[in-house]
Amino acid sequence: MADLAELVPRIAATMAARTARGRVANYIPDLAKVSASHFGMVVITADGREHAAGDADLAFSIQSISKVFALVEALASHGEGVWQRVGREPSGGAFNSIVQLEAEAGRPRNPFINAGAIAVTDLITDGDDPRAGAGRILRLLRDLAGTQGIAVDGAVAYSEAATGHRNAALAHFMKAHGVLTGRVEATLSTYFHQCAIAMSCRELARAGRFLMNGGVDPASGRRVVSPEQARRINALMLTCGHYDASGDFAFSVGLPAKSGVGGGILAIAPGRASIAVWSPGLSPQGNSLLGTAALEELASAMGWSVFNPDA
Amino acid sequence: MADLAELVPRIAATMAARTARGRVANYIPDLAKVSASHFGMVVITADGREHAAGDADLAFSIQSISKVFALVEALASHGEGVWQRVGREPSGGAFNSIVQLEAEAGRPRNPFINAGAIAVTDLITDGDDPRAGAGRILRLLRDLAGTQGIAVDGAVAYSEAATGHRNAALAHFMKAHGVLTGRVEATLSTYFHQCAIAMSCRELARAGRFLMNGGVDPASGRRVVSPEQARRINALMLTCGHYDASGDFAFSVGLPAKSGVGGGILAIAPGRASIAVWSPGLSPQGNSLLGTAALEELASAMGWSVFNPDA
Amino acid sequence: MADLAELVPRIAATMAARTARGRVANYIPDLAKVSASHFGMVVITADGREHAAGDADLAFSIQSISKVFALVEALASHGEGVWQRVGREPSGGAFNSIVQLEAEAGRPRNPFINAGAIAVTDLITDGDDPRAGAGRILRLLRDLAGTQGIAVDGAVAYSEAATGHRNAALAHFMKAHGVLTGRVEATLSTYFHQCAIAMSCRELARAGRFLMNGGVDPASGRRVVSPEQARRINALMLTCGHYDASGDFAFSVGLPAKSGVGGGILAIAPGRASIAVWSPGLSPQGNSLLGTAALEELASAMGWSVFNPDA
Amino acid sequence: MADLAELVPRIAATMAARTARGRVANYIPDLAKVSASHFGMVVITADGREHAAGDADLAFSIQSISKVFALVEALASHGEGVWQRVGREPSGGAFNSIVQLEAEAGRPRNPFINAGAIAVTDLITDGDDPRAGAGRILRLLRDLAGTQGIAVDGAVAYSEAATGHRNAALAHFMKAHGVLTGRVEATLSTYFHQCAIAMSCRELARAGRFLMNGGVDPASGRRVVSPEQARRINALMLTCGHYDASGDFAFSVGLPAKSGVGGGILAIAPGRASIAVWSPGLSPQGNSLLGTAALEELASAMGWSVFNPDA
Repeated sequence: MADLAELVPRIAATMAARTARGRVANYIPDLAKVSASHFGMVVITADGREHAAGDADLAFSIQSISKVFALVEALASHGEGVWQRVGREPSGGAFNSIVQLEAEAGRPRNPFINAGAIAVTDLITDGDDPRAGAGRILRLLRDLAGTQGIAVDGAVAYSEAATGHRNAALAHFMKAHGVLTGRVEATLSTYFHQCAIAMSCRELARAGRFLMNGGVDPASGRRVVSPEQARRINALMLTCGHYDASGDFAFSVGLPAKSGVGGGILAIAPGRASIAVWSPGLSPQGNSLLGTAALEELASAMGWSVFNPDA
Repeated sequence: MADLAELVPRIAATMAARTARGRVANYIPDLAKVSASHFGMVVITADGREHAAGDADLAFSIQSISKVFALVEALASHGEGVWQRVGREPSGGAFNSIVQLEAEAGRPRNPFINAGAIAVTDLITDGDDPRAGAGRILRLLRDLAGTQGIAVDGAVAYSEAATGHRNAALAHFMKAHGVLTGRVEATLSTYFHQCAIAMSCRELARAGRFLMNGGVDPASGRRVVSPEQARRINALMLTCGHYDASGDFAFSVGLPAKSGVGGGILAIAPGRASIAVWSPGLSPQGNSLLGTAALEELASAMGWSVFNPDA
Repeated sequence: MADLAELVPRIAATMAARTARGRVANYIPDLAKVSASHFGMVVITADGREHAAGDADLAFSIQSISKVFALVEALASHGEGVWQRVGREPSGGAFNSIVQLEAEAGRPRNPFINAGAIAVTDLITDGDDPRAGAGRILRLLRDLAGTQGIAVDGAVAYSEAATGHRNAALAHFMKAHGVLTGRVEATLSTYFHQCAIAMSCRELARAGRFLMNGGVDPASGRRVVSPEQARRINALMLTCGHYDASGDFAFSVGLPAKSGVGGGILAIAPGRASIAVWSPGLSPQGNSLLGTAALEELASAMGWSVFNPDA
Repeated sequence: MADLAELVPRIAATMAARTARGRVANYIPDLAKVSASHFGMVVITADGREHAAGDADLAFSIQSISKVFALVEALASHGEGVWQRVGREPSGGAFNSIVQLEAEAGRPRNPFINAGAIAVTDLITDGDDPRAGAGRILRLLRDLAGTQGIAVDGAVAYSEAATGHRNAALAHFMKAHGVLTGRVEATLSTYFHQCAIAMSCRELARAGRFLMNGGVDPASGRRVVSPEQARRINALMLTCGHYDASGDFAFSVGLPAKSGVGGGILAIAPGRASIAVWSPGLSPQGNSLLGTAALEELASAMGWSVFNPDA
């Protein structure tokens, strides 16, 4: 097994030198203007050590990674009732497909495609104040990362709302099927705010520690979710965390992970490490190109794939 | 952690007492006449011990579990070229869906849905003799299980062919798209023969040992697939092994596994165990109802989920 | 050929006696409370005679029949440019399907499914005032029917908007694809207002006279659309006027016609008659059950099918 | 109204001069080798006069036009029972789509898409002899055209069978759903033979005369189908005769018509004319490009659209 203190900077150096870096998301200006040259990586092991390299402390838009923490909040307040409105199956389609919704009467396949995430966010949306629901996620992230410095990027939230017609279509469609209970506009606003949360790789890796540790945040000793819920969230991240490239990610990396179009990925090696990578250039499926490559190299060098006999 | 010598018989006794046992597959007479009262289970651990209970030595039709071994054979002869004709993504649809094929120009999503398995079988079909391709799989299984007693059930193979119009539709559709290279009739015949292989839980658990052991059969020391291929096959079993209930299985059991409509399931706890269960009654999605329940109990009691921090 | 003066009352009497009357639309209270016992029919022939029977002068909600007149308005202001944003093909799906939209990049199949009608309405929506666009349709209808008594039913318009999440999903989806140019909320409001127009069979049959007469309103001599446009609107009504029962209607009645969930149908016998029927009970596909039966009887008795050699 | 004796040669001359002629079907060699320079047209009016121009007496492969005559044969032997296995709705999809079949449990939308035509052919397939069923259609065509010179092109039939994997997929899929009753191989063979019938525009226009004449062949006085059946076949041709360009054809030409990938089109002006055109170059949807243009010119000049007030 490799030495992380040497490995993490080496992977960062390799990624910094790559010329094919993918395409930065351009559907809103605040994402489009981020340089593809960024690369950051933080690995926090079970013993609490942090190995950081590159742009480890630069904040980026976590986008869909927020879906993991929205799910944690929904499980906290609604328990297993969450699964009555959203499934646990890989979607086999693009992240924002509406076809599957029609075939399945408005019930989204899983909480990590957009429709499913909106259905989960609807559960934690409080009345008409978008700051209430997004605030719950923010407080959770600040608590887990041990910093008050995490915030919603208002410009990104505004742009998401202004261009979010496809998400609005998904939300109205689910409302028509009775899957959403709140006002569509309030749920969407909460969703656009949670997607616009900005934080660094270091903060994100810290926020993910409870998932490598059976549901308990090792920094505070606080139980965030039950051991069973931790396993299940990891299972969902492995089967559904990378949209219609989830199978390929499980095949090549073998770790539970959730990506966002801001270029971030949170990956969990159960019992071993919480890992965050960030590189804004995306693959055609919308996942960080170099982030995926870095995780493949890390998991391979450390033997961390959950499918490894020595893992 | 529980004691397997006590646990395995206890799970078998629990399952024997269950009254809701699912529905036995009835699309061909030789499957329909099998009694739902059967239950068998064998767990082989890394140290070589075998824990068996119930109908552990009764042969059953392995059906789709054969797809794992057909894939091993195809990887042996065609290497990574296999992935040019079949993907690695969960399908998000039923095992025999033709819709996805049309949307994706005849390239099946993964090797464990019927279309993908037929595409893989086409690679190991030799000319017009169905016994040639099925024979390769048989030899592999006999070698891994250490017995010459494994055979194709001719009556099942005949019935599969006579009623297999949906599989024929999938095969002709792929042929129309150039995904199959052999004669459709020969490929289908090979496929129907491989599905009709009959073997016991003990034989199946033995045949799966190389997958818990990084690709090396611990009984013979023979390398069957590379460590990377072993990880990848496990990843495919986890994300795609239970048709459109794969996500639920990963969520509740957390082990790579492949089911068949004969009621068998082969499950792998990497580094820990190769497990076979058999109970003919099926869930609506076509997976063994009690087999799944037994694996959930076993994985939970042993802490074997790949998403467990102590796994 | 039958005598209309005798035939129309006889058909109305037959329909009044029917016990199987279909189900009244119940998605909004103001439609649900209409009695299924109503039946009205008006036939206006090329020579100007009006044959009326039953509830011929009771106003009902024209709903989707308004799509014909919205199309006329859009053709008036945008000419053939209309066909750049909406197709001319039968949809082969339900009236409010979103699947086809996804498959075809947001461009609706034809102007008579909901998505297509919303795209057409977007063309005649003026800024943010829903009364402006709906007002254009109202003025056209009042002019063609020769009465100022036609109006929007405000309660219906309000209920449509409050429950119209599926239409909102379609509109946002098209907006995401750039098919709509106006504000989604304004276009939807215009659409909900136009659907809520209430008028009687007599008024509706009068409003349709230009379509039997090559585009010229015989009452005023005013040209409403070109002869070619009149033919084309009739063609669209025949192929697309009854959602996914359009083929059956062409098969059994053989006349261009447009139905609405309020239970009305406007049918055209080119060169012969403009016909309006109303009976609120619907078939499972959402078309007036007795209205369709009455038109079948009328067309058969008069030999008016466009597929008739003597027509 | 124009003079046909002058009009038909003028249209033929116009079409001969066109440079954009579409693409000749190339999925089988015998179709691919036909020159795109051909153009033939025959118009037979109700008074029995024949107006011919261009390659009016050259035989071509009628392909899907045979579906009209297979339907006539099935109606003759099975009456309205035909509609229990095939619908009457436009498909809204490509001619050989399998998606719709899956959504609708194997029951094809209408008798003019491939799946529907195969289901109809299955009704007239006699045992295992493909010559029996195709022979019924041949005899009908010879009788209607008044010539024994019409035959199946054996080379085309052979090539269709050799490359017909998509049709085989459709057939096996319907067999799996119980929609076909005969042996799949026999039904397919009959289908491939009927598609390979070769005849000229003159023969085809003669064969279509009963459809302009309420079901009675004007040459022999023989009733081929009932007046109602004649109307209904015309309705089906109008709504479903040009695959997913049927709406456009109704919109621009306004006549019941059935096209084939050999480049032929049979069009009916009820009460007025039976028309056959042939030009092998196809539109992207698979319909004769110049044949469609010629029919549009003819229908427009003669005022023959069924949506014309003077028709």
